[in-house]
Amino acid sequence: MLNIALAQMNIHAGDPRYNVTVMKKNIAQAKEIGCDMIIFPELAIPGYLIGDVWDQQDYIDECVAFGEELRQLSADITIVFGNVACESGRVNLDGHLRKYNAMFVARNKEFLSPHASPYPFYIKTLLPNYREFSDSRYFTSLLEVAQERHIFVEDLFSPIRVDFGNNRHLTIGPLICEDSWDENYPFKPMSFLGKQYSPDMFINISNSPFTLGKTQRRHRLFGQSIKKVHAPTLYVNCTGIQNNGKNIYTFDGSSCTYTKEGNPHFECQPFEEELAFVQYDEISRTFTSPKKTNLPKKETEEIYTSLRYGITSFLSSIGVNKVVIGVSGGIDSAVNAALYAAILPPSQIMLVNMPSCYNSSITKDLAKTLADNIGCLYTVIPVQDSLELTRKQIQTAEVYSGEKKVSHLELTSFIEENIQARDRSSRILAAVAASFGGVFTCNANKAETAVGYATLYGDHAGYLSATADLWKHQMYALAVYLNQNVFHRDVIPKGSIDIVPSAELSASQDIAKGQGDPIIYPYHDYLFASFVENWHRVTPQSILQWYIDGTLEEHIGCSISVHTLFPTAKEFIDDLERWWKLVSGFAVAKRIQSPPILSISRRSFGYDLREAQLKPYYTTKYVSLKEQLLKTKV
Amino acid sequence: MLNIALAQMNIHAGDPRYNVTVMKKNIAQAKEIGCDMIIFPELAIPGYLIGDVWDQQDYIDECVAFGEELRQLSADITIVFGNVACESGRVNLDGHLRKYNAMFVARNKEFLSPHASPYPFYIKTLLPNYREFSDSRYFTSLLEVAQERHIFVEDLFSPIRVDFGNNRHLTIGPLICEDSWDENYPFKPMSFLGKQYSPDMFINISNSPFTLGKTQRRHRLFGQSIKKVHAPTLYVNCTGIQNNGKNIYTFDGSSCTYTKEGNPHFECQPFEEELAFVQYDEISRTFTSPKKTNLPKKETEEIYTSLRYGITSFLSSIGVNKVVIGVSGGIDSAVNAALYAAILPPSQIMLVNMPSCYNSSITKDLAKTLADNIGCLYTVIPVQDSLELTRKQIQTAEVYSGEKKVSHLELTSFIEENIQARDRSSRILAAVAASFGGVFTCNANKAETAVGYATLYGDHAGYLSATADLWKHQMYALAVYLNQNVFHRDVIPKGSIDIVPSAELSASQDIAKGQGDPIIYPYHDYLFASFVENWHRVTPQSILQWYIDGTLEEHIGCSISVHTLFPTAKEFIDDLERWWKLVSGFAVAKRIQSPPILSISRRSFGYDLREAQLKPYYTTKYVSLKEQLLKTKV
Repeated sequence: MLNIALAQMNIHAGDPRYNVTVMKKNIAQAKEIGCDMIIFPELAIPGYLIGDVWDQQDYIDECVAFGEELRQLSADITIVFGNVACESGRVNLDGHLRKYNAMFVARNKEFLSPHASPYPFYIKTLLPNYREFSDSRYFTSLLEVAQERHIFVEDLFSPIRVDFGNNRHLTIGPLICEDSWDENYPFKPMSFLGKQYSPDMFINISNSPFTLGKTQRRHRLFGQSIKKVHAPTLYVNCTGIQNNGKNIYTFDGSSCTYTKEGNPHFECQPFEEELAFVQYDEISRTFTSPKKTNLPKKETEEIYTSLRYGITSFLSSIGVNKVVIGVSGGIDSAVNAALYAAILPPSQIMLVNMPSCYNSSITKDLAKTLADNIGCLYTVIPVQDSLELTRKQIQTAEVYSGEKKVSHLELTSFIEENIQARDRSSRILAAVAASFGGVFTCNANKAETAVGYATLYGDHAGYLSATADLWKHQMYALAVYLNQNVFHRDVIPKGSIDIVPSAELSASQDIAKGQGDPIIYPYHDYLFASFVENWHRVTPQSILQWYIDGTLEEHIGCSISVHTLFPTAKEFIDDLERWWKLVSGFAVAKRIQSPPILSISRRSFGYDLREAQLKPYYTTKYVSLKEQLLKTKV
Repeated sequence: MLNIALAQMNIHAGDPRYNVTVMKKNIAQAKEIGCDMIIFPELAIPGYLIGDVWDQQDYIDECVAFGEELRQLSADITIVFGNVACESGRVNLDGHLRKYNAMFVARNKEFLSPHASPYPFYIKTLLPNYREFSDSRYFTSLLEVAQERHIFVEDLFSPIRVDFGNNRHLTIGPLICEDSWDENYPFKPMSFLGKQYSPDMFINISNSPFTLGKTQRRHRLFGQSIKKVHAPTLYVNCTGIQNNGKNIYTFDGSSCTYTKEGNPHFECQPFEEELAFVQYDEISRTFTSPKKTNLPKKETEEIYTSLRYGITSFLSSIGVNKVVIGVSGGIDSAVNAALYAAILPPSQIMLVNMPSCYNSSITKDLAKTLADNIGCLYTVIPVQDSLELTRKQIQTAEVYSGEKKVSHLELTSFIEENIQARDRSSRILAAVAASFGGVFTCNANKAETAVGYATLYGDHAGYLSATADLWKHQMYALAVYLNQNVFHRDVIPKGSIDIVPSAELSASQDIAKGQGDPIIYPYHDYLFASFVENWHRVTPQSILQWYIDGTLEEHIGCSISVHTLFPTAKEFIDDLERWWKLVSGFAVAKRIQSPPILSISRRSFGYDLREAQLKPYYTTKYVSLKEQLLKTKV
């Protein structure tokens, strides 16, 4: 029998001293209750998303030194942990320090090697270079090591044998976050090791961010792989948050043991730091106790849980505990206010309503009701006087060329819309937040972020966009969830949920007349998602082909018929081009300067979806489909 | 004798239709004058920096189809070009479409293969994953192809044999931007091909951004490699600009032929689109004519040339031809104004001075003089009234908790500094720019960008930071250069160059009293550069070690003695920690939301230097060095 500790620790990326302090405490605790082995996540010492801090030689040396300290603690316990490994003085092709994303197994103050490896650690082989990951930027893979030594990678793969004393031993198949890879790839470490060596057990250490539905996907995919190799498996992932600048990721942990049939046997609590203990019978190759699995969560519950965790952790990481939220009476700011209300005491939340002459009394009242419902601080600071001052200053500004007065400046209604938006965030909210001793939020959603339906330095400003990875329909679902499941009362006024979404920035956006945003969310949410989240990142070419084939709704997953929205092909195409032009054009420029996004989807704007400022492009195929369609259908 | 055309084309990234139109014209022109071969740059059809447009299957299909069109034009001429290649329907390990960064050689309507290759194109082998490059995110390398086929990469390397008719033929060593790699790497295509096959000639197609001093570096490094393999070499690079969102890069072209001794023989004009023709004698293996090399440029001339080219091209790419520049009378805004004055007619430039009560008449006069010198439009829009309105609105705002008035908000002098900065950019400049029909600029330099000495949505706003990759000393040198070499008169008033740099945002920043920025540029420029640009990204640990060793000035390259600036170790350490805390802390948060940067250095903030929001970290070694130092020296 073996006692094994799973250290689902909250990794503080960029703070190895903190991480090692936690690890040492966990090791002491595990020793105290007689554990044979303790397992920490991937890159537990340095953290994962630390950007180009990976280039800092001083930082790498520090992490390696801390790894040595852990080795010294392995006299009576086997310690498995992820750390950066590096060959002293060895540089890469590009001049950078050569580094590995490595798994160390320490026992009797020694690091054990996979027996075929030249190094006393396992090197991550499948380096992800998609979405938010840039592993090849920082790490050399086992494939490259093999190539360099002029051998094949399978000659370097092998399990690690650990002798626990009292005739108990294990051969361990090491994996670093290599859990959900295409089975057919020839060098998949898990299938190769499984077939070649039949290790007693796989240990997968991870540093893997949360995305919607991820745990269930992992149970399915990783479970299948485990079933094939027929080996009980330990999966240890971290909690906490990490970021790459533009994206803040939550880490759910969800560490878990799998039976050799690929079924979860013990699951840690998601989003909670935990040192869990399991018993393993090495004779029968089964986890004996405890047995505990979690109920799968529905999407909106997952969204709420991760946003709540992410906001809480991010505020704490930047040392802030007060927020200012501009509230319009609409759904997005109401959802943000309610989210923060679920996190901070009401006295640390200030809602600010900033009406101009275009804001209706309906929405102003809704904003006030929201504040009353939360019980937080509330103030009204109109932007009308400032708008008028700006109008006067700009329209009466004397423009000279040398000594000659040459022209004056005019403001259009459209310019004044943006003036109001910037005035609210950059003049009022920023100053109020500074005075209040906190930060102000950006209340964007993913649909408006996609097309840049927001003003730079205006509603596209703030310390964090907590909801910018939520499509509008997810925003509505979250509003209902907050009322029903979090507050058990209508904290978000029903009016804010029912009202037509509107920016209320001009007379043409009068909610009393039902005039609102130009985005038709029940269709555009899904259209934009196909541009952004679809694996092949659909362009108007595919959209138009599907429209012609009559399969568009099915392909993009929307339940509204596009023919009811756009009676003619021309209207459909005009709409498609209007948004494509923005998504792939001006909206990119706005996103470059927009706040960081709390990411929950499998593709969020930012470092996850990397964008250049380009001219919107229509493929030749699209151009010809369009020509045909307009010829035949108009 | 062979007639060869080097197509130093201006690649429009993301616009294959445009690129192919240019290529077809070039091919027609080359055919007309009887060329045997025309060579285009790397990724000439799709462009290089297009972000995750690389995920769009429709886009890839489009580029591949255009490549086929070019193949059809190769009946009478050999066409060498870079394009994306892809195996139909084949996906990678991670589910993405498998793509190669490839060189195609078309002759007689066929694509010629390197004879050992399974593909009718050469696959880029050394994929850069540093700085702004993320090749492994998008492309599969020849190493991976070899691994997958269970052979070694050298079994796939081979030259391409081209038969030009009339008994003229060449074996070509293909290279894709693989010109400046460590000679000792075992799979360096150039040295391997050179040793194994002695090809008649190397052709290196590139898509390589400009950085300061790059051409001379290439001549030295690539020249050395060429000398070793003793083969005449063609280097074809593109012009234009490309961006990855946060960084705008200029591409200088600087296409060139090298003799087999590794010396440049013919160089295209940098930063100019050009279809150059050279003659090559395949018997003597020499380029016969023309012979033309460029004089190396000094740093400031290079800076000016690339900024001018970058700004011009970027304005054109976004369809803007009017700019608004906030001018304070200080050096940074003056340099920006003069730069734009070298690009746009004076009637398309509007300078705006926005004084508050803290701005001296000295700087206000300097701003006016600058505008007069340029002859552009000029206006003064004070921020004092707005500051007072904001002060009044915020300090008299009634803050409620329910029906109870609970508190009111106060503004400190520091908050009011930021209010002024945001008022200038987000309220005035943004509105003036919209009214003028243009954009407003961000006038940041690299030192203040490094430490975040700027206000978000304030002076850290604008459509582009043209000078944010220039240290302050480069800014001064550029000011002098603009006056002396571009305008041949003092367009930038001497006063703006001589005055103490100051933000003039409070009474404590009074330039009349010589009170200015807290940054001591002659030291901090170099300190910050060591944090950012040094290959091993120095941390306070190395700085302190060098300080103790007495080698700091030498290591970071500053000419001022730190002991004259900081008489005691404590003062030195306080200063070091003050800035490190900002560089690695709050300044990161600001940079996430700051405008795109025109990049000229070998490490500029943005996608070139990727950053996470982390807690500033001090290594254990640093902490102990500091303790020792303070113990012994205080």
